[in-house]
Amino acid sequence: MRKSPYFREFGIDASAIPAGPGRVPFSAAAAEVLEEFQPAVVSFHFGLPAPELLERVRRWGAKILSSATTVDEALWLEARGVDAVIAQGLEAGGHRGHFLSEDLGMQVGTFALVPQIVRAVKIPVIAAVGIADAKGVAAAMALGAAGVQIGTAYMLCAEATTSAVHRAALKSDAARVTALTNLFTGRPARGIVNRLMRELGPINPAAPAFPLATAAIAPLRAQAESLGSGEFSPLWAGQNASGCKEVPASLLTRELAGALEYALQHCDPGEAPQAARP
Amino acid sequence: MRKSPYFREFGIDASAIPAGPGRVPFSAAAAEVLEEFQPAVVSFHFGLPAPELLERVRRWGAKILSSATTVDEALWLEARGVDAVIAQGLEAGGHRGHFLSEDLGMQVGTFALVPQIVRAVKIPVIAAVGIADAKGVAAAMALGAAGVQIGTAYMLCAEATTSAVHRAALKSDAARVTALTNLFTGRPARGIVNRLMRELGPINPAAPAFPLATAAIAPLRAQAESLGSGEFSPLWAGQNASGCKEVPASLLTRELAGALEYALQHCDPGEAPQAARP
Repeated sequence: MRKSPYFREFGIDASAIPAGPGRVPFSAAAAEVLEEFQPAVVSFHFGLPAPELLERVRRWGAKILSSATTVDEALWLEARGVDAVIAQGLEAGGHRGHFLSEDLGMQVGTFALVPQIVRAVKIPVIAAVGIADAKGVAAAMALGAAGVQIGTAYMLCAEATTSAVHRAALKSDAARVTALTNLFTGRPARGIVNRLMRELGPINPAAPAFPLATAAIAPLRAQAESLGSGEFSPLWAGQNASGCKEVPASLLTRELAGALEYALQHCDPGEAPQAARP
Repeated sequence: MRKSPYFREFGIDASAIPAGPGRVPFSAAAAEVLEEFQPAVVSFHFGLPAPELLERVRRWGAKILSSATTVDEALWLEARGVDAVIAQGLEAGGHRGHFLSEDLGMQVGTFALVPQIVRAVKIPVIAAVGIADAKGVAAAMALGAAGVQIGTAYMLCAEATTSAVHRAALKSDAARVTALTNLFTGRPARGIVNRLMRELGPINPAAPAFPLATAAIAPLRAQAESLGSGEFSPLWAGQNASGCKEVPASLLTRELAGALEYALQHCDPGEAPQAARP
Protein backbone atom coordinates (compact mmCIF):
# COMPACT_ATOMS: atom_id res chain seq x y z
CA MET A 1 0.00 0.00 0.00
CA ARG A 2 1.12 3.55 -0.65
CA LYS A 3 1.41 4.33 3.03
CA SER A 4 4.71 6.23 3.04
CA PRO A 5 3.11 9.68 2.51
CA TYR A 6 0.96 8.99 5.58
CA PHE A 7 4.00 7.82 7.54
CA ARG A 8 5.74 11.11 6.65
CA GLU A 9 2.62 13.12 7.55
CA PHE A 10 2.50 11.56 11.01
CA GLY A 11 6.29 11.32 11.50
CA ILE A 12 6.32 7.52 11.71
CA ASP A 13 9.41 5.34 11.27
CA ALA A 14 8.40 2.51 8.91
CA SER A 15 10.79 0.16 10.73
CA ALA A 16 8.40 0.43 13.70
CA ILE A 17 5.99 -1.90 11.90
CA PRO A 18 5.78 -5.07 14.01
CA ALA A 19 6.39 -8.36 12.22
CA GLY A 20 3.94 -11.24 12.16
CA PRO A 21 0.20 -11.74 11.89
CA GLY A 22 -2.39 -9.64 13.72
CA ARG A 23 -4.59 -12.70 14.31
CA VAL A 24 -3.93 -16.43 14.57
CA PRO A 25 -6.33 -19.23 13.60
CA PHE A 26 -7.93 -21.50 16.19
CA SER A 27 -5.27 -24.00 17.29
CA ALA A 28 -4.59 -26.92 19.64
CA ALA A 29 -3.11 -24.41 22.10
CA ALA A 30 -6.30 -22.30 21.99
CA ALA A 31 -8.45 -25.42 22.42
CA GLU A 32 -6.39 -26.36 25.47
CA VAL A 33 -7.10 -23.00 27.11
CA LEU A 34 -10.81 -23.18 26.26
CA GLU A 35 -11.09 -26.75 27.52
CA GLU A 36 -10.52 -25.53 31.06
CA PHE A 37 -13.52 -23.21 30.84
CA GLN A 38 -15.73 -25.50 28.73
CA PRO A 39 -17.81 -22.73 27.15
CA ALA A 40 -21.31 -23.94 26.24
CA VAL A 41 -21.17 -22.36 22.78
CA VAL A 42 -18.19 -21.98 20.45
CA SER A 43 -18.83 -19.85 17.36
CA PHE A 44 -16.37 -19.96 14.44
CA HIS A 45 -15.90 -17.53 11.56
CA PHE A 46 -14.35 -18.13 8.10
CA GLY A 47 -15.63 -21.72 8.07
CA LEU A 48 -14.55 -24.37 10.58
CA PRO A 49 -11.21 -25.57 12.02
CA ALA A 50 -9.70 -28.96 11.13
CA PRO A 51 -11.92 -31.96 12.05
CA GLU A 52 -9.73 -33.07 15.00
CA LEU A 53 -9.89 -29.59 16.55
CA LEU A 54 -13.64 -29.42 16.02
CA GLU A 55 -14.02 -32.87 17.62
CA ARG A 56 -12.09 -31.66 20.64
CA VAL A 57 -14.49 -28.75 21.13
CA ARG A 58 -17.47 -31.07 20.72
CA ARG A 59 -16.12 -33.46 23.38
CA TRP A 60 -16.79 -31.02 26.21
CA GLY A 61 -20.36 -30.66 24.95
CA ALA A 62 -20.10 -27.22 23.35
CA LYS A 63 -22.68 -26.25 20.75
CA ILE A 64 -20.88 -25.34 17.52
CA LEU A 65 -21.91 -22.32 15.44
CA SER A 66 -20.43 -20.79 12.30
CA SER A 67 -21.41 -18.14 9.76
CA ALA A 68 -22.71 -18.71 6.24
CA THR A 69 -22.85 -15.90 3.69
CA THR A 70 -24.46 -18.05 0.98
CA VAL A 71 -26.81 -21.04 0.80
CA ASP A 72 -23.85 -23.19 -0.31
CA GLU A 73 -21.87 -22.28 2.81
CA ALA A 74 -24.89 -23.08 5.00
CA LEU A 75 -25.19 -26.53 3.40
CA TRP A 76 -21.42 -27.08 3.82
CA LEU A 77 -21.64 -26.23 7.53
CA GLU A 78 -24.72 -28.38 8.08
CA ALA A 79 -22.97 -31.34 6.43
CA ARG A 80 -20.13 -30.95 8.98
CA GLY A 81 -22.52 -31.10 11.91
CA VAL A 82 -22.75 -27.55 13.23
CA ASP A 83 -25.61 -27.10 15.70
CA ALA A 84 -26.86 -23.86 14.16
CA VAL A 85 -25.85 -21.68 11.27
CA ILE A 86 -25.48 -17.90 11.45
CA ALA A 87 -26.81 -16.28 8.25
CA GLN A 88 -24.53 -13.29 7.72
CA GLY A 89 -26.14 -10.82 5.34
CA LEU A 90 -24.11 -8.31 3.35
CA GLU A 91 -25.21 -5.58 5.77
CA ALA A 92 -23.20 -7.01 8.68
CA GLY A 93 -20.31 -5.06 10.19
CA GLY A 94 -16.75 -6.37 10.54
CA HIS A 95 -15.31 -9.32 8.67
CA ARG A 96 -17.35 -11.15 6.06
CA GLY A 97 -17.37 -14.81 7.07
CA HIS A 98 -17.32 -16.16 3.49
CA PHE A 99 -15.08 -19.19 3.00
CA LEU A 100 -16.20 -21.07 -0.13
CA SER A 101 -15.92 -18.15 -2.56
CA GLU A 102 -13.98 -14.91 -2.38
CA ASP A 103 -16.30 -13.21 -4.88
CA LEU A 104 -17.85 -10.25 -3.06
CA GLY A 105 -20.28 -9.76 -5.96
CA MET A 106 -22.04 -12.97 -4.94
CA GLN A 107 -22.66 -11.84 -1.36
CA VAL A 108 -26.33 -11.71 -0.46
CA GLY A 109 -28.46 -9.23 1.50
CA THR A 110 -30.11 -10.50 4.67
CA PHE A 111 -33.60 -10.16 3.32
CA ALA A 112 -32.83 -12.66 0.56
CA LEU A 113 -30.30 -14.79 2.47
CA VAL A 114 -32.18 -15.73 5.65
CA PRO A 115 -35.32 -17.27 4.07
CA GLN A 116 -33.28 -19.20 1.50
CA ILE A 117 -30.97 -20.69 4.15
CA VAL A 118 -34.00 -21.46 6.36
CA ARG A 119 -35.49 -23.36 3.43
CA ALA A 120 -32.23 -25.19 2.61
CA VAL A 121 -31.11 -26.52 6.02
CA LYS A 122 -32.74 -28.43 8.87
CA ILE A 123 -30.73 -26.85 11.69
CA PRO A 124 -31.71 -23.54 13.35
CA VAL A 125 -30.74 -20.35 11.52
CA ILE A 126 -29.55 -17.29 13.43
CA ALA A 127 -29.90 -14.00 11.51
CA ALA A 128 -26.91 -11.65 11.85
CA VAL A 129 -27.61 -8.63 9.82
CA GLY A 130 -27.59 -5.07 10.91
CA ILE A 131 -30.48 -5.70 13.28
CA ALA A 132 -30.70 -2.43 15.17
CA ASP A 133 -33.80 -2.64 17.31
CA ALA A 134 -37.09 -4.39 18.08
CA LYS A 135 -38.31 -3.89 14.50
CA GLY A 136 -35.24 -5.66 13.16
CA VAL A 137 -35.70 -8.58 15.54
CA ALA A 138 -39.35 -8.95 14.52
CA ALA A 139 -38.42 -8.80 10.83
CA ALA A 140 -35.68 -11.43 11.19
CA MET A 141 -38.09 -13.75 12.99
CA ALA A 142 -40.71 -13.16 10.28
CA LEU A 143 -38.15 -14.31 7.70
CA GLY A 144 -37.90 -17.62 9.56
CA ALA A 145 -34.85 -17.09 11.79
CA ALA A 146 -34.73 -19.04 15.06
CA GLY A 147 -32.80 -16.22 16.71
CA VAL A 148 -30.67 -13.18 16.03
CA GLN A 149 -27.03 -12.20 16.55
CA ILE A 150 -26.43 -8.51 17.10
CA GLY A 151 -23.11 -6.67 17.08
CA THR A 152 -23.20 -3.04 15.99
CA ALA A 153 -26.09 -2.05 18.27
CA TYR A 154 -23.97 -2.93 21.35
CA MET A 155 -20.92 -0.92 20.36
CA LEU A 156 -21.79 2.17 22.40
CA CYS A 157 -22.66 0.16 25.52
CA ALA A 158 -20.38 0.89 28.47
CA GLU A 159 -19.26 -2.74 28.55
CA ALA A 160 -17.96 -2.67 24.95
CA THR A 161 -14.24 -2.10 24.40
CA THR A 162 -15.01 0.23 21.49
CA SER A 163 -12.26 2.89 21.26
CA ALA A 164 -12.95 6.60 21.70
CA VAL A 165 -12.48 7.41 17.99
CA HIS A 166 -14.71 4.47 17.06
CA ARG A 167 -17.45 5.64 19.45
CA ALA A 168 -17.27 9.16 18.02
CA ALA A 169 -17.64 7.82 14.48
CA LEU A 170 -20.61 5.60 15.42
CA LYS A 171 -22.40 8.61 16.93
CA SER A 172 -21.74 10.82 13.88
CA ASP A 173 -23.50 11.07 10.52
CA ALA A 174 -20.42 9.34 9.07
CA ALA A 175 -21.86 6.06 10.38
CA ARG A 176 -24.46 6.20 7.61
CA VAL A 177 -21.83 5.37 4.99
CA THR A 178 -19.96 2.08 5.34
CA ALA A 179 -18.06 -0.05 2.84
CA LEU A 180 -16.29 -3.39 2.69
CA THR A 181 -12.55 -2.83 2.97
CA ASN A 182 -9.45 -5.03 3.00
CA LEU A 183 -7.09 -2.22 4.06
CA PHE A 184 -7.02 -2.94 7.78
CA THR A 185 -6.55 -6.72 7.96
CA GLY A 186 -6.26 -8.02 4.39
CA ARG A 187 -9.76 -9.54 4.38
CA PRO A 188 -12.95 -7.71 3.40
CA ALA A 189 -14.71 -6.28 6.44
CA ARG A 190 -17.38 -3.59 6.73
CA GLY A 191 -16.50 -0.32 8.42
CA ILE A 192 -17.42 3.35 8.44
CA VAL A 193 -15.73 5.07 5.48
CA ASN A 194 -12.76 7.19 6.62
CA ARG A 195 -9.82 8.97 5.01
CA LEU A 196 -7.68 5.86 4.40
CA MET A 197 -10.58 4.07 2.68
CA ARG A 198 -11.47 7.13 0.60
CA GLU A 199 -7.90 7.80 -0.51
CA LEU A 200 -6.69 4.25 -1.22
CA GLY A 201 -10.06 2.83 -2.24
CA PRO A 202 -11.75 0.50 0.27
CA ILE A 203 -10.75 -2.68 -1.59
CA ASN A 204 -7.12 -2.35 -2.69
CA PRO A 205 -5.22 -5.33 -4.14
CA ALA A 206 -1.98 -3.89 -2.72
CA ALA A 207 -3.11 -4.50 0.88
CA PRO A 208 -1.01 -7.20 2.61
CA ALA A 209 -2.73 -10.60 2.80
CA PHE A 210 -4.86 -11.46 5.84
CA PRO A 211 -3.99 -11.05 8.65
CA LEU A 212 -0.72 -9.24 7.91
CA ALA A 213 -2.32 -5.88 7.03
CA THR A 214 -3.16 -5.35 10.71
CA ALA A 215 0.50 -4.96 11.66
CA ALA A 216 1.31 -2.91 8.56
CA ILE A 217 -1.26 -0.29 9.52
CA ALA A 218 -0.63 -0.41 13.29
CA PRO A 219 1.86 2.49 13.76
CA LEU A 220 -0.15 4.85 11.55
CA ARG A 221 -3.37 3.93 13.32
CA ALA A 222 -1.81 4.38 16.78
CA GLN A 223 -0.31 7.76 15.91
CA ALA A 224 -3.56 9.06 14.38
CA GLU A 225 -5.64 7.78 17.30
CA SER A 226 -3.29 9.47 19.78
CA LEU A 227 -4.18 12.70 17.97
CA GLY A 228 -7.90 11.91 18.32
CA SER A 229 -8.34 10.83 14.70
CA GLY A 230 -10.11 7.68 13.51
CA GLU A 231 -9.19 8.33 9.87
CA PHE A 232 -6.70 5.43 9.83
CA SER A 233 -8.52 2.99 12.14
CA PRO A 234 -10.88 0.14 11.32
CA LEU A 235 -14.25 1.61 12.34
CA TRP A 236 -16.19 -1.65 12.03
CA ALA A 237 -19.93 -1.14 11.78
CA GLY A 238 -22.90 -2.71 10.04
CA GLN A 239 -25.03 -0.82 7.54
CA ASN A 240 -27.46 0.18 10.27
CA ALA A 241 -25.77 1.85 13.22
CA SER A 242 -28.99 3.69 14.09
CA GLY A 243 -29.70 1.26 16.92
CA CYS A 244 -26.52 2.06 18.88
CA LYS A 245 -27.44 3.26 22.36
CA GLU A 246 -25.29 4.45 25.24
CA VAL A 247 -27.05 2.18 27.71
CA PRO A 248 -25.90 -0.79 29.76
CA ALA A 249 -25.74 -3.93 27.61
CA SER A 250 -28.20 -5.65 29.95
CA LEU A 251 -30.87 -3.04 29.24
CA LEU A 252 -30.39 -3.29 25.47
CA THR A 253 -30.47 -7.10 25.70
CA ARG A 254 -33.73 -7.04 27.65
CA GLU A 255 -35.30 -4.70 25.10
CA LEU A 256 -34.26 -6.89 22.17
CA ALA A 257 -35.25 -10.10 23.98
CA GLY A 258 -38.66 -8.59 24.66
CA ALA A 259 -39.05 -7.98 20.94
CA LEU A 260 -37.97 -11.56 20.22
CA GLU A 261 -40.58 -12.94 22.58
CA TYR A 262 -43.25 -10.66 21.15
CA ALA A 263 -42.39 -11.70 17.60
CA LEU A 264 -42.51 -15.37 18.53
CA GLN A 265 -45.97 -14.96 20.03
CA HIS A 266 -47.68 -12.60 17.62
CA CYS A 267 -45.96 -12.40 14.33
CA ASP A 268 -45.89 -15.79 12.59
CA PRO A 269 -46.70 -15.16 8.94
CA GLY A 270 -47.33 -18.88 8.62
CA GLU A 271 -50.69 -18.06 10.16
CA ALA A 272 -51.53 -15.58 7.43
CA PRO A 273 -54.18 -16.70 4.95
CA GLN A 274 -52.70 -18.82 2.15
CA ALA A 275 -54.33 -18.14 -1.20
CA ALA A 276 -51.86 -19.73 -3.60
CA ARG A 277 -50.77 -23.31 -3.19
CA PRO A 278 -49.06 -24.17 -6.46
CA MET B 1 -16.38 -5.38 -25.10
CA ARG B 2 -14.54 -8.36 -26.52
CA LYS B 3 -17.63 -9.65 -28.27
CA SER B 4 -16.11 -10.62 -31.62
CA PRO B 5 -15.25 -14.21 -30.58
CA TYR B 6 -18.91 -14.65 -29.61
CA PHE B 7 -20.04 -13.10 -32.90
CA ARG B 8 -17.84 -15.61 -34.74
CA GLU B 9 -19.13 -18.49 -32.59
CA PHE B 10 -22.74 -17.65 -33.47
CA GLY B 11 -22.05 -16.53 -37.06
CA ILE B 12 -23.20 -12.95 -36.49
CA ASP B 13 -22.39 -10.00 -38.77
CA ALA B 14 -21.27 -7.17 -36.46
CA SER B 15 -22.78 -4.64 -38.88
CA ALA B 16 -26.17 -6.04 -37.84
CA ILE B 17 -25.90 -4.13 -34.56
CA PRO B 18 -28.71 -1.55 -34.57
CA ALA B 19 -27.73 2.06 -33.88
CA GLY B 20 -29.20 4.18 -31.10
CA PRO B 21 -30.26 3.74 -27.50
CA GLY B 22 -32.21 0.76 -26.18
CA ARG B 23 -34.22 2.99 -23.84
CA VAL B 24 -35.21 6.66 -23.86
CA PRO B 25 -35.80 8.87 -20.81
CA PHE B 26 -39.26 10.17 -19.90
CA SER B 27 -40.06 13.04 -22.27
CA ALA B 28 -42.74 15.57 -23.21
CA ALA B 29 -43.88 13.13 -25.92
CA ALA B 30 -44.25 10.33 -23.36
CA ALA B 31 -46.12 12.65 -20.98
CA GLU B 32 -48.50 13.54 -23.81
CA VAL B 33 -49.36 9.88 -24.36
CA LEU B 34 -49.79 9.24 -20.62
CA GLU B 35 -51.95 12.34 -20.18
CA GLU B 36 -54.69 10.69 -22.22
CA PHE B 37 -54.84 7.76 -19.82
CA GLN B 38 -54.20 9.74 -16.63
CA PRO B 39 -52.70 6.84 -14.65
CA ALA B 40 -53.28 7.25 -10.92
CA VAL B 41 -49.67 6.39 -10.06
CA VAL B 42 -46.49 7.21 -11.99
CA SER B 43 -43.33 5.58 -10.68
CA PHE B 44 -39.91 6.83 -11.84
CA HIS B 45 -36.50 5.15 -11.65
CA PHE B 46 -33.00 6.73 -11.70
CA GLY B 47 -34.31 9.82 -9.87
CA LEU B 48 -36.94 12.18 -11.30
CA PRO B 49 -37.51 13.91 -14.66
CA ALA B 50 -37.09 17.69 -15.09
CA PRO B 51 -39.40 19.80 -12.86
CA GLU B 52 -41.69 20.90 -15.73
CA LEU B 53 -42.27 17.28 -16.78
CA LEU B 54 -42.92 16.25 -13.18
CA GLU B 55 -45.39 19.13 -12.80
CA ARG B 56 -47.24 17.95 -15.87
CA VAL B 57 -47.69 14.47 -14.40
CA ARG B 58 -48.85 15.99 -11.11
CA ARG B 59 -51.47 18.14 -12.87
CA TRP B 60 -53.64 15.15 -13.74
CA GLY B 61 -53.52 14.10 -10.09
CA ALA B 62 -51.09 11.18 -10.37
CA LYS B 63 -49.28 10.06 -7.24
CA ILE B 64 -45.53 10.22 -7.87
CA LEU B 65 -43.18 7.47 -6.71
CA SER B 66 -39.45 6.95 -7.20
CA SER B 67 -36.75 4.63 -5.86
CA ALA B 68 -34.09 5.46 -3.28
CA THR B 69 -31.07 3.22 -2.73
CA THR B 70 -29.65 5.33 0.12
CA VAL B 71 -31.00 7.59 2.86
CA ASP B 72 -29.60 10.59 0.96
CA GLU B 73 -31.60 9.69 -2.15
CA ALA B 74 -34.76 9.28 -0.05
CA LEU B 75 -34.27 12.76 1.43
CA TRP B 76 -33.62 14.18 -2.06
CA LEU B 77 -36.86 12.66 -3.38
CA GLU B 78 -38.89 13.81 -0.37
CA ALA B 79 -37.59 17.36 -0.84
CA ARG B 80 -38.92 17.27 -4.42
CA GLY B 81 -42.39 16.29 -3.29
CA VAL B 82 -42.75 12.61 -4.20
CA ASP B 83 -45.79 11.00 -2.57
CA ALA B 84 -43.95 7.88 -1.46
CA VAL B 85 -40.42 6.58 -1.72
CA ILE B 86 -39.50 3.05 -2.80
CA ALA B 87 -36.58 1.74 -0.71
CA GLN B 88 -34.61 -0.42 -3.14
CA GLY B 89 -32.31 -2.75 -1.24
CA LEU B 90 -29.21 -4.25 -2.81
CA GLU B 91 -31.06 -7.57 -3.19
CA ALA B 92 -33.46 -6.21 -5.82
CA GLY B 93 -33.41 -7.59 -9.37
CA GLY B 94 -32.97 -5.49 -12.51
CA HIS B 95 -31.57 -1.98 -12.61
CA ARG B 96 -30.29 -0.30 -9.47
CA GLY B 97 -32.16 3.00 -9.17
CA HIS B 98 -29.22 4.93 -7.67
CA PHE B 99 -28.85 8.47 -8.98
CA LEU B 100 -26.82 10.52 -6.48
CA SER B 101 -23.76 8.26 -6.38
CA GLU B 102 -22.48 5.64 -8.80
CA ASP B 103 -20.50 3.89 -6.07
CA LEU B 104 -21.88 0.35 -5.85
CA GLY B 105 -19.85 -0.22 -2.67
CA MET B 106 -22.18 2.19 -0.86
CA GLN B 107 -25.36 0.32 -1.80
CA VAL B 108 -27.29 -0.92 1.20
CA GLY B 109 -29.12 -4.17 1.99
CA THR B 110 -32.86 -3.95 2.57
CA PHE B 111 -32.63 -4.93 6.18
CA ALA B 112 -30.52 -1.87 6.93
CA LEU B 113 -32.02 0.46 4.31
CA VAL B 114 -35.75 0.30 5.04
CA PRO B 115 -35.69 1.24 8.75
CA GLN B 116 -33.19 4.05 8.18
CA ILE B 117 -35.29 5.59 5.38
CA VAL B 118 -38.45 5.15 7.48
CA ARG B 119 -36.73 7.09 10.24
CA ALA B 120 -35.42 9.81 7.90
CA VAL B 121 -38.53 10.76 5.87
CA LYS B 122 -42.14 11.63 6.69
CA ILE B 123 -43.68 10.15 3.52
CA PRO B 124 -44.66 6.47 3.21
CA VAL B 125 -41.86 4.01 2.42
CA ILE B 126 -42.44 1.07 0.08
CA ALA B 127 -39.95 -1.79 0.51
CA ALA B 128 -38.71 -3.32 -2.77
CA VAL B 129 -36.31 -5.99 -1.92
CA GLY B 130 -36.37 -9.55 -2.97
CA ILE B 131 -39.62 -10.13 -1.10
CA ALA B 132 -40.57 -13.63 -2.17
CA ASP B 133 -43.56 -14.60 -0.10
CA ALA B 134 -45.76 -13.92 2.93
CA LYS B 135 -42.75 -14.08 5.27
CA GLY B 136 -41.01 -11.38 3.27
CA VAL B 137 -44.07 -9.15 3.35
CA ALA B 138 -44.39 -9.56 7.12
CA ALA B 139 -40.68 -8.80 7.59
CA ALA B 140 -40.82 -5.66 5.44
CA MET B 141 -43.82 -4.40 7.39
CA ALA B 142 -42.03 -5.15 10.67
CA LEU B 143 -39.16 -2.94 9.48
CA GLY B 144 -41.62 -0.07 9.17
CA ALA B 145 -42.56 -0.18 5.48
CA ALA B 146 -46.02 1.11 4.53
CA GLY B 147 -46.19 -1.35 1.66
CA VAL B 148 -44.11 -3.57 -0.60
CA GLN B 149 -43.19 -3.65 -4.28
CA ILE B 150 -42.55 -7.10 -5.69
CA GLY B 151 -41.02 -7.99 -9.03
CA THR B 152 -39.12 -11.27 -9.21
CA ALA B 153 -41.87 -13.36 -7.59
CA TYR B 154 -44.24 -12.53 -10.50
CA MET B 155 -41.85 -13.47 -13.28
CA LEU B 156 -43.20 -16.99 -13.77
CA CYS B 157 -46.84 -15.86 -13.77
CA ALA B 158 -48.62 -16.48 -17.07
CA GLU B 159 -49.27 -12.76 -17.47
CA ALA B 160 -45.55 -11.86 -17.34
CA THR B 161 -43.73 -11.35 -20.64
CA THR B 162 -40.72 -13.25 -19.28
CA SER B 163 -38.97 -15.03 -22.17
CA ALA B 164 -38.62 -18.81 -22.37
CA VAL B 165 -34.88 -18.81 -21.58
CA HIS B 166 -35.49 -16.42 -18.68
CA ARG B 167 -38.24 -18.67 -17.28
CA ALA B 168 -35.98 -21.70 -17.54
CA ALA B 169 -33.20 -19.89 -15.67
CA LEU B 170 -35.57 -18.72 -12.91
CA LYS B 171 -36.74 -22.30 -12.37
CA SER B 172 -33.19 -23.70 -12.25
CA ASP B 173 -30.59 -23.78 -9.47
CA ALA B 174 -28.74 -21.09 -11.43
CA ALA B 175 -31.23 -18.56 -10.01
CA ARG B 176 -29.49 -18.89 -6.65
CA VAL B 177 -26.47 -16.96 -7.95
CA THR B 178 -27.05 -13.41 -9.19
CA ALA B 179 -24.72 -10.46 -9.63
CA LEU B 180 -24.88 -6.80 -10.60
CA THR B 181 -23.82 -6.43 -14.22
CA ASN B 182 -23.43 -3.54 -16.66
CA LEU B 183 -22.93 -5.79 -19.69
CA PHE B 184 -26.50 -5.76 -20.99
CA THR B 185 -27.49 -2.07 -20.81
CA GLY B 186 -24.48 -0.12 -19.55
CA ARG B 187 -25.95 0.42 -16.07
CA PRO B 188 -25.59 -1.97 -13.13
CA ALA B 189 -28.55 -4.32 -12.88
CA ARG B 190 -28.96 -7.62 -11.03
CA GLY B 191 -29.39 -10.78 -13.05
CA ILE B 192 -28.75 -14.52 -12.87
CA VAL B 193 -25.08 -15.19 -13.64
CA ASN B 194 -24.64 -16.64 -17.15
CA ARG B 195 -21.79 -17.29 -19.56
CA LEU B 196 -21.36 -13.68 -20.73
CA MET B 197 -21.17 -12.42 -17.13
CA ARG B 198 -18.76 -15.19 -16.12
CA GLU B 199 -16.44 -14.71 -19.09
CA LEU B 200 -16.32 -10.89 -19.30
CA GLY B 201 -16.81 -10.24 -15.59
CA PRO B 202 -20.23 -8.91 -14.55
CA ILE B 203 -19.03 -5.30 -14.22
CA ASN B 204 -16.81 -4.47 -17.19
CA PRO B 205 -15.66 -0.89 -17.86
CA ALA B 206 -15.57 -1.69 -21.61
CA ALA B 207 -19.37 -2.04 -21.77
CA PRO B 208 -20.99 0.76 -23.83
CA ALA B 209 -22.57 3.52 -21.72
CA PHE B 210 -26.24 3.24 -20.72
CA PRO B 211 -28.44 2.58 -22.63
CA LEU B 212 -26.26 1.82 -25.67
CA ALA B 213 -25.10 -1.61 -24.49
CA THR B 214 -28.59 -3.00 -25.16
CA ALA B 215 -28.20 -2.59 -28.92
CA ALA B 216 -24.58 -3.77 -28.89
CA ILE B 217 -25.59 -7.09 -27.36
CA ALA B 218 -28.87 -7.50 -29.30
CA PRO B 219 -27.77 -9.68 -32.27
CA LEU B 220 -25.78 -12.05 -30.04
CA ARG B 221 -28.65 -12.32 -27.59
CA ALA B 222 -31.20 -12.96 -30.35
CA GLN B 223 -29.08 -15.63 -32.00
CA ALA B 224 -28.36 -17.42 -28.71
CA GLU B 225 -32.02 -17.26 -27.65
CA SER B 226 -33.10 -18.70 -31.01
CA LEU B 227 -30.90 -21.68 -30.10
CA GLY B 228 -32.60 -21.94 -26.69
CA SER B 229 -29.69 -20.40 -24.78
CA GLY B 230 -29.98 -17.65 -22.17
CA GLU B 231 -26.20 -17.38 -21.80
CA PHE B 232 -26.11 -13.98 -23.54
CA SER B 233 -29.43 -12.55 -22.28
CA PRO B 234 -30.15 -10.31 -19.31
CA LEU B 235 -31.77 -12.75 -16.87
CA TRP B 236 -32.94 -10.09 -14.41
CA ALA B 237 -33.76 -11.49 -10.99
CA GLY B 238 -33.50 -10.45 -7.37
CA GLN B 239 -31.39 -12.35 -4.85
CA ASN B 240 -34.40 -14.42 -3.81
CA ALA B 241 -36.15 -16.09 -6.73
CA SER B 242 -37.48 -18.82 -4.44
CA GLY B 243 -40.92 -17.20 -4.40
CA CYS B 244 -41.50 -17.49 -8.15
CA LYS B 245 -44.67 -19.47 -8.81
CA GLU B 246 -46.32 -20.56 -12.03
CA VAL B 247 -49.71 -19.29 -10.93
CA PRO B 248 -51.98 -16.52 -12.20
CA ALA B 249 -50.77 -13.13 -11.00
CA SER B 250 -54.13 -12.53 -9.32
CA LEU B 251 -53.66 -15.57 -7.08
CA LEU B 252 -50.12 -14.55 -6.09
CA THR B 253 -51.33 -11.00 -5.42
CA ARG B 254 -54.13 -12.23 -3.17
CA GLU B 255 -51.70 -14.40 -1.22
CA LEU B 256 -49.25 -11.54 -0.71
CA ALA B 257 -52.03 -9.06 0.09
CA GLY B 258 -53.36 -11.47 2.70
CA ALA B 259 -49.93 -11.50 4.31
CA LEU B 260 -49.82 -7.70 4.22
CA GLU B 261 -53.16 -7.44 5.97
CA TYR B 262 -52.14 -10.04 8.53
CA ALA B 263 -48.89 -8.21 9.23
CA LEU B 264 -50.70 -4.89 9.64
CA GLN B 265 -53.09 -6.42 12.16
CA HIS B 266 -50.85 -8.68 14.21
CA CYS B 267 -47.25 -7.86 13.84
CA ASP B 268 -46.48 -4.30 14.97
CA PRO B 269 -43.21 -4.48 16.90
CA GLY B 270 -44.03 -1.01 18.23
CA GLU B 271 -46.29 -2.89 20.62
CA ALA B 272 -43.43 -5.00 21.93
CA PRO B 273 -42.27 -4.14 25.45
CA GLN B 274 -39.80 -1.25 25.47
CA ALA B 275 -37.11 -1.70 28.09
CA ALA B 276 -34.53 0.87 26.99
CA ARG B 277 -35.48 4.47 26.39
CA PRO B 278 -32.19 6.33 26.15
